[in-house]
Amino acid sequence: MAVGLSRPDNIHPVNGVQLASVSAGIKNDHKPDLVLIEFEAGTVCAGVFTRNAFSAAPVTVAKKHLMQARPRALLINSGNANAGTGDQGLQDAEACCAMLASALSCSQDEVLPFSTGVIGEYLPMDKIEAAVPGLADRLAADAWLDAADAIMTTDTVAKACSSSVQIDGVEVTISGIAKGAGMIRPDMATMLAFIATDAAVSADWLQRSLESGVDVSFNRISVDGDTSTNDACMLAATGASGCRTLAGECDGSVRFQQALNEVLVQLAQAIVRDGEGATKFVTVRVESAASLDEASRVAYTVAHSPLVKTALFASDPNWGRILAAVGRAGVDDLDISAVGIYLGDVCIVSKGGRDPRYEESMGQAVMQQQELTIRIVLNRGSEQISVWTTDLSYDYVKINAEYRT
Amino acid sequence: MAVGLSRPDNIHPVNGVQLASVSAGIKNDHKPDLVLIEFEAGTVCAGVFTRNAFSAAPVTVAKKHLMQARPRALLINSGNANAGTGDQGLQDAEACCAMLASALSCSQDEVLPFSTGVIGEYLPMDKIEAAVPGLADRLAADAWLDAADAIMTTDTVAKACSSSVQIDGVEVTISGIAKGAGMIRPDMATMLAFIATDAAVSADWLQRSLESGVDVSFNRISVDGDTSTNDACMLAATGASGCRTLAGECDGSVRFQQALNEVLVQLAQAIVRDGEGATKFVTVRVESAASLDEASRVAYTVAHSPLVKTALFASDPNWGRILAAVGRAGVDDLDISAVGIYLGDVCIVSKGGRDPRYEESMGQAVMQQQELTIRIVLNRGSEQISVWTTDLSYDYVKINAEYRT
Repeated sequence: MAVGLSRPDNIHPVNGVQLASVSAGIKNDHKPDLVLIEFEAGTVCAGVFTRNAFSAAPVTVAKKHLMQARPRALLINSGNANAGTGDQGLQDAEACCAMLASALSCSQDEVLPFSTGVIGEYLPMDKIEAAVPGLADRLAADAWLDAADAIMTTDTVAKACSSSVQIDGVEVTISGIAKGAGMIRPDMATMLAFIATDAAVSADWLQRSLESGVDVSFNRISVDGDTSTNDACMLAATGASGCRTLAGECDGSVRFQQALNEVLVQLAQAIVRDGEGATKFVTVRVESAASLDEASRVAYTVAHSPLVKTALFASDPNWGRILAAVGRAGVDDLDISAVGIYLGDVCIVSKGGRDPRYEESMGQAVMQQQELTIRIVLNRGSEQISVWTTDLSYDYVKINAEYRT
Repeated sequence: MAVGLSRPDNIHPVNGVQLASVSAGIKNDHKPDLVLIEFEAGTVCAGVFTRNAFSAAPVTVAKKHLMQARPRALLINSGNANAGTGDQGLQDAEACCAMLASALSCSQDEVLPFSTGVIGEYLPMDKIEAAVPGLADRLAADAWLDAADAIMTTDTVAKACSSSVQIDGVEVTISGIAKGAGMIRPDMATMLAFIATDAAVSADWLQRSLESGVDVSFNRISVDGDTSTNDACMLAATGASGCRTLAGECDGSVRFQQALNEVLVQLAQAIVRDGEGATKFVTVRVESAASLDEASRVAYTVAHSPLVKTALFASDPNWGRILAAVGRAGVDDLDISAVGIYLGDVCIVSKGGRDPRYEESMGQAVMQQQELTIRIVLNRGSEQISVWTTDLSYDYVKINAEYRT
């Protein structure tokens, strides 16, 4: 029951990238759960990874391999996170890379492993070993949506998106897939995202472009405030479009960044729209803050508040809970008489209390919308931020209480 | 359905304190909702208040009056928080004090007002005005439990507790009541607590004793991580026991602090046991941390995690969620190979992954208990902390989604 999100279509192939998916039997339901994304030689890769101290074995191995070599292939499994698995987990992640390297005739450190699913179980290596050789035979340029399906866990709908942009007269494509529906928060989450482009971009500039884009997309979403051990977002640039190499600030790189951000924001919002048990897609916007840090603190305090989230689920304009969340966000010397709080365009709080023109029916009308904005104007400065979140429903509890049953 | 908590009995009267409750019709259900606690002349009072920037009108007025005079009476209403009510709210809170002052023949600033309930509605002043005069006639020394009933909102059971201690051969009594079941977190919450003793304590020492006690009781509990606009904890010392005045560190003041902490911890734990929708009472204990701050950060990250809380509700030993919460708590340079995580006495995580001796049935057995401890050993230093929390259930969502319907 994703909010305003349906299965994507028309995901454009990216020159120099092929994908394949199979069912290895890692998931219990025999759905596809193993994905290969292969890049042509010379492809440049950038990555952003979870900051969770208990980062999963594949994250550790992927970061190491990314420093050692230019990746030729990403191997992604769903159904098992290979996290909390100690030394055995590291050996298993390396062994997965070795198997695929053998099938593709590349070196082991040219393969990056990714896993998502239950934490704390060892990978079923026999099943993966049996499935890997078949992957190479299935490689196809138009298999993006199948890959998006195969990396899903609690997701209810596949997440994929394309964009294209002209750089010096050359058409460049950016396509990406993502998965994630819980454990979502800034600094990445149970989230995996794989984006590729046929633009040519230098390694340093690609990393900078990815970090800049993640900062306004995946780092702006929250479902439940939890952060997973496995989050990663990869961006590969094959250069196969034939455009000149982007390596610094220029008209072309600005256009590339805009198109990239469009893809990243759409994928990030898709994760929130498919948030576990979500019935609403909510933008929390904080304006005229003294610093980005305080804007962010206020926005996330509201976005994470279970009381605000249950009121959203009930379509109850219980604005007192928003006010209380703003009040406890830890903003120094907050002058509450200067704060304005809005539901959509309706002013609910001014001068430290309920706005005199506010009537319950006005807030009710906004709250009943599937997509709405909570806007908080601090009147302390010029910084602003928007973050995207969901409500907290019975189904969130159901999904997470019964996840392993 | 509070966890391991039944209606208290045997709350000891405190010499010099009388209480009264009536139904003023502020609550919709005609239950008692207005309480007077009266102190004899010479009583010394200490208070700890919410740090929420949008603190409610009664909090503002109570803090002001406490600085201006020695309180003779506390006037507490449930059913309406008088928060987010701007200037009108402040006038109303002052007017409540004036009404009671008139009935008791004391000055307006000798009355402290407290309110709890829905945010953002004005107090029904006509109902309060009609009910206040009748309060004085009902004053009784043994009415603690009635008062505990009357301050409840979403609480399912009254919270009250007594302790006594010998100071220099004189028996001193400490009794207290509290309310609160949601919006609970450190720095006080939708929580109100009123404690009185017949010990004689200097004003400064009483304030210090209260802050020290709150730090190990009400500041150690979490239901949903929200903090209300109305939290307050008051401690009154009448001196009527005839014991000598405690004004500094001595054998008597140590014993007094121990007895006070006992009352505060029991009331604080009662709030968690009656946490909205709670089916479990969970102690999160962090040991051998490098600082109290990091111990606290780890403990609250685990205690607030919706994924840990839903796993607790499901009695699912999904320890990966605990591990992931520890990992994202922001502890600098955490060596995960040194971290031990225990469910009760069962070691679940060692050396960065599942403990080799751990089996699912062992974790399951602990998880099925109504009361359990999650223990995290960081092996980085000598600081430790225990915080108390609950699970996240369907009923939490139900209670908070339907609160105003």
